This record gives sequence, C-alpha cells and structure tokens, in this order.
Amino acid sequence: MTAALTAALLLLHSAGLPAQTLQSDGQSKPAQTNVPEAEYPRVLPDGSAIFRLVAPAANEVQVDICGKKFPMTKDEKGVWTVTTEPLVVGFHYYSLIVDGVSVNDRASEAFYGCGYVSSGIEIPEDEATAAYYTFDRNVPHGQVRECQYWSDTENRMRRCFVYTPAEYDLNPQKSYPVLYLQHGMGEDERGWSQQGRMANILDNQIAAGKCVPMVVVMDNGNCSYIFGARKNEGRDGFGASFGPVLLNDIIPFIEKTFRVRTDRDSRALAGLSWGGHQTFEVGLRNLDKFSHLGTFSGAIFMAPGADFTKLYDGAFADAKSFNSKVHALFMGTGSEENFGTQQFCENLTKIGIKNTFYLSQGTAHEWLTWRRCLDQFLPMLFRAE
Amino acid sequence: MTAALTAALLLLHSAGLPAQTLQSDGQSKPAQTNVPEAEYPRVLPDGSAIFRLVAPAANEVQVDICGKKFPMTKDEKGVWTVTTEPLVVGFHYYSLIVDGVSVNDRASEAFYGCGYVSSGIEIPEDEATAAYYTFDRNVPHGQVRECQYWSDTENRMRRCFVYTPAEYDLNPQKSYPVLYLQHGMGEDERGWSQQGRMANILDNQIAAGKCVPMVVVMDNGNCSYIFGARKNEGRDGFGASFGPVLLNDIIPFIEKTFRVRTDRDSRALAGLSWGGHQTFEVGLRNLDKFSHLGTFSGAIFMAPGADFTKLYDGAFADAKSFNSKVHALFMGTGSEENFGTQQFCENLTKIGIKNTFYLSQGTAHEWLTWRRCLDQFLPMLFRAE
Repeated sequence: MTAALTAALLLLHSAGLPAQTLQSDGQSKPAQTNVPEAEYPRVLPDGSAIFRLVAPAANEVQVDICGKKFPMTKDEKGVWTVTTEPLVVGFHYYSLIVDGVSVNDRASEAFYGCGYVSSGIEIPEDEATAAYYTFDRNVPHGQVRECQYWSDTENRMRRCFVYTPAEYDLNPQKSYPVLYLQHGMGEDERGWSQQGRMANILDNQIAAGKCVPMVVVMDNGNCSYIFGARKNEGRDGFGASFGPVLLNDIIPFIEKTFRVRTDRDSRALAGLSWGGHQTFEVGLRNLDKFSHLGTFSGAIFMAPGADFTKLYDGAFADAKSFNSKVHALFMGTGSEENFGTQQFCENLTKIGIKNTFYLSQGTAHEWLTWRRCLDQFLPMLFRAE
Repeated sequence: MTAALTAALLLLHSAGLPAQTLQSDGQSKPAQTNVPEAEYPRVLPDGSAIFRLVAPAANEVQVDICGKKFPMTKDEKGVWTVTTEPLVVGFHYYSLIVDGVSVNDRASEAFYGCGYVSSGIEIPEDEATAAYYTFDRNVPHGQVRECQYWSDTENRMRRCFVYTPAEYDLNPQKSYPVLYLQHGMGEDERGWSQQGRMANILDNQIAAGKCVPMVVVMDNGNCSYIFGARKNEGRDGFGASFGPVLLNDIIPFIEKTFRVRTDRDSRALAGLSWGGHQTFEVGLRNLDKFSHLGTFSGAIFMAPGADFTKLYDGAFADAKSFNSKVHALFMGTGSEENFGTQQFCENLTKIGIKNTFYLSQGTAHEWLTWRRCLDQFLPMLFRAE
C-alpha cells in the first residue's frame, strides 16, 4: 500500500477532528470510560477530572456532570480545558455544553442514559474496593448474550441481554434460576452490563461461592421518555406497559430459549430507580411468579400515613403468608439521596413484613449505589433449595 | 407516588433538553437509527432526511454526512433544521457541527466508527431488497454473545462478540465452523452486529438453507486511530498488532470456549476496508489455519506492475497449490468507490488464482456494500464437507 493512499484513507476517516496532544502532569490517567486512545478526559489521584475540547469558534463551553456545571477556559489555540473539583467515586453521566447546546464528548464511550446516548466518566475507587466489579483474569467468565425476539404484546421486535454463567455451556443438563434485572428511567437494557458491570459482579461472586450460578435477564423497561410520547402516559402509567411484556413475552421467551427453572422459587425480580418502582408494581402483584424482590434506589414514594396493608392490592396484608412466599425482600439506597427507602422498610417491619434495608455510604442516585446493591442482593437469592 | 415527585424525577433526568415537537408532513418517518421516541432525524420517501437541533445561542450549525455538509437554518425559536437532498440508501455516519465543533446528534443511536462514538442514519431500501438484513419474526434467531477474555499478547482484558446460530444450544454434541469477521479502520468489534446487522443476515440465510450454520467471531482489529498513538505505528504497521492477537489469543479462546471445529477447512477470515487489508496480511501468510478468505472494500493497494507471485510471502506463487487449499477467495467492492479491487482480481486470474469478484451496484465505502458482500460470501463457506 502506498503512503499516499494510506494517508488519504486516514484523512477520509479523521476529517475535522484534530489529534489530542497530551500535556503530561505525571499524575493523571485517561478515564476508563474513554474510547480507545483518547487521552482526555483524565482523572487525577484526588478524583478531580480534566476535560478538554478543541473548539476555536465556540463562545462558551462548559462540562455538565449530573447537573453541576464547570466553565471551561479557552487558550490561544482554541482549546478549552477545565480541571474539576474532586468528584465522587463511581460512574457519572456528563455532557459538554457548547454555546448552549448539550452534546456528547466524543472522547467518551457512549452510555444510554438520561433518555439519550450520553457521555460517562468513571472516577475509580481504590483497587481493593473496586475488586467486586472488576474483571478478574483468574476467574471463569460468563457471557452477555444479545437476543432479539418477537413481542406479541407490542407487535414488534424487542431486544434483551441475558447473562449466562461460565458453567452454563459445560452443563447441558443443568437448569438455572433467573434474576430479571431492570434499569432506571431514561436508560435501557444495556445499562446493567455497561454502566453496572454486572457480568464482573456475577463472575466474581459465582467463582467465590458467594451467590449461586444463575441466569440474569436485562430487558427494556419502556421508561425512556426524553423525546416525547411516553411523558403523556401520565405519572401512574409511566412505564406500566413493561408489566404485561415481562409476563407475556419476556418470561416465556427466556423459558423456551434458555435452560432455566420455571418455578416461582427460581424467579427473582429487581430494578434500580424506576426499575425498582416497576419491580414492586409487577412483582408484588404477581407473587405466584416471583419469590425474591429487590429495589435499588427504588422510586417508591408513599404519602405520609399510608396504610401499608392496602398497598399493591394488599400484598403486605398478611405478613405470615407474605414472609413464607417471599424469600428475600431487599431495599437499598445511597446515603446521599433520599427516596424514603429506610422509612418504607421500617413501616414494613412494623407490620411484620421481613425485609432487608441496605445503605450505600457516600453514594447518590448513581451506578455505584446500584453496583453495591446488586452485590448485596445476589447472595440472598435462590438459597431455599 | 405524588405528581410533584414524579415531575421532580423527570426534571432531574431531562434537565436542559427540550422535548421535540413534530411538524408532521404526512410522509416522513423517524429514522430507524434514532433512539426511542426521537422524532428527528426523519426520512422522506425519496431518501432525503430532515435534521433538527434546538440551539438558540449557536451561530452556525451544519449536518455533516460522510464529509458532505448541509447548512441548517434557525427559526425564531432557535430551532435549526435542514432537509437534505435525497441520500444514497444504506447506513451513513453523520455529525452535527455546532459553531465549528463536530458533535453527535443525541437523537441518534451511537455507532462506533471514525474512531469515536458517531451518529448514524439508515436510509431504507424497499422492504423486499432489505429483507436479507431485516429481522424476520418467522425464522429462528441466533445470539450475539459478548465475551471478555484475557490476552497474554497484550497483557490486558479484551472483548469480542460471538454469533451462535439458533440451533447451537439445541445440539450440545455438534461442533460448528467459524468465520472470523473484522470491521474497518476507526471501527470496533461492535460494528458488524450493529451497523452491519450480521445476525439478521445469518439468521435469514441459515433458515433458508443458503449458508451452513456457523459461529461468527467479531473482535477488535486494533485499528482505531483518531486520538493519537496508533497513527505512529507507520503505514505498514498500522493494525499489524491484530495478527498475533488473532492467532495466539482469539482463536485459542474461541476454540476452548465454544463448540467449534478446529481444522483449517472449518476456519474462514474476512474483513471490510482495513479489516480486508488485515485478512490478506494475516490469512495469506497462515494458509495452514484458514481455508476461506474474504475482503469487502479491502484496503489492498498494489503498485502498477507489481509481481503478484511475490506478494504476501509468495502466497500466490503456486496457483495449483493455492487453489487446492483456498476453497473461497472473495473480493467485493462498491461501484461508487475505487480501491482497485477488480484490477486485483483480474491480476489474480491471470496467474491462475481462482477468485470471486463482486460489485455492489450504486454503493460506496459504506455498510450497505459490506452487508451485501457478507450476503454474497456466506453461501461460499464450508461447503467442502
């Protein structure tokens, strides 16, 4: 191949995007969440981050990290930069605001959240703390399988991701219990395997014997919203179309496609934020189908003085019956958010409903809370056998 | 849940992004490549597209579709729009240029291409023509499995996607042939299953008996480049690090993890653009390992008058030997690009090397060319048995 032709091909592909030049400070590292070879954004040891954008013609550029804006400053070459204050550890969605328009940072990998494809930055914890959601070359690894299937309920093709444990293909006679695991509002079926790093969490726990080998199904909760239509479903109906799809399409598809157990004791349902809301809406009304329920920062709000024995069609009315059927009722939340989770658990305890409350210290309504919740929830599953 | 709390949660997630309002023209439809519920971009029946961006403070906004720029105009509310000329059918990467900065359109799904996460728009063909790469509810569907594995060569975790045919889990005693299928420069291991729609192509062909059931492995060709370092590998070395990884890490990982045949007659290697270049660089030098080779718009350029019997360590020197070993040598290209593919094939024929040249009418250096090439190539594979 001639040099000229290679150069032309490179130019064809890279038109308009100047290469990044790194001014090394000897301490910062490219964020784990960057696309290959992107030197920015970078993370400093104290958790602050350096962002950079080449935009000579722009008048104002900011970084917006979960609603907190950091103005960037332009040098004589038109390169905008900012070093933030130290950020909370974990995963944050962010955007760049260029002359008033929120856009992705092309140096970041894309994460579906907030109702669109968003940029994200991982502020790392220390290695030991992060080990549970980190790839470990010394343990066997499961797979995350993308499946397309037909939904009669919606009369269209849908997509789900299904985690199978490393041993799945080695035991063609064995059937596995299933956890149905849902994302939050404005996210989709990719969230748990990308932002949530669920495959690493499962691989590590299974290898250590902390949880039993299981299949995990991640589907779309029908609670995207940003561009319009579903906003009109109304507050109570928002995402409600997911319930019938789960019961009539997803579970039947999974049970005919994978080697899974089909008894209620072998089915769990959990979700984060709006997925927690859906877990209670669907799970508590279908206790003939689910035996373990989990909400992670669940969007479950009760009016003060609500009669808990009347909620969810009376699911909590008979504590003894409930406790015999539901082998785990887990509700987790971050200490830096307040969805009333602890109060909800206390109210349940008052009427005799067994439950587990978990508080993630120092984290907010973000994925690190939910990784921790999953890590706490998994060992409680499918232990009755 | 109270209305106020729901509203607060929605606001938390949608800060700064106005809902899209559709001015219906009765003809256009949202692009297939949009994120859920995004009404723009829209495609008109003649293949022209309508783009839209809310950016009251911006001074200049353009749409850039594969290097061709369309200026957008702003209305009194700060909404920029443009209707393009009719576009070529198929998939195109595009970006918005806001005051000189190329950015993603958040209404588009994200596609890794051009070295970063890019926007993309599918201009649909008529249904019958598009059927071969369209999801068909009436055929069995395979899975695309995301696998993480350790690479000793690179001393790091790598990721690949592996298509398994629908029958794979139903035949625990059967082993399958393998096609290793590579993306192009600036793309990655996601390209074939996302932009390329390879799972639909395989599902449809297998169901119709056009190709044999096979496993398809899509890994990273180490030819991302945009942000820096690999540009310095030099023209001949660019992407060359993929070869050792394929031979020493990827193939061993696949053969120990999946039920695949391990003889050379059951291994094929193909790739598009730079992946075609790599296919020849690696495949022709390792004919003890591969029996079928395909290049789709392969970046394979020869100086005029090159002695073909000396190329690739003399792979073509003995035509009789070559033809007995290589059961398919396929080279496809689009009619609207010129990588010298036809001339290359003619030169091969002159020295007695059997080969198949395919010309995709009316398509350029884009994914529709490569979907068609895959569709042509698959029936030629693993027929010797």
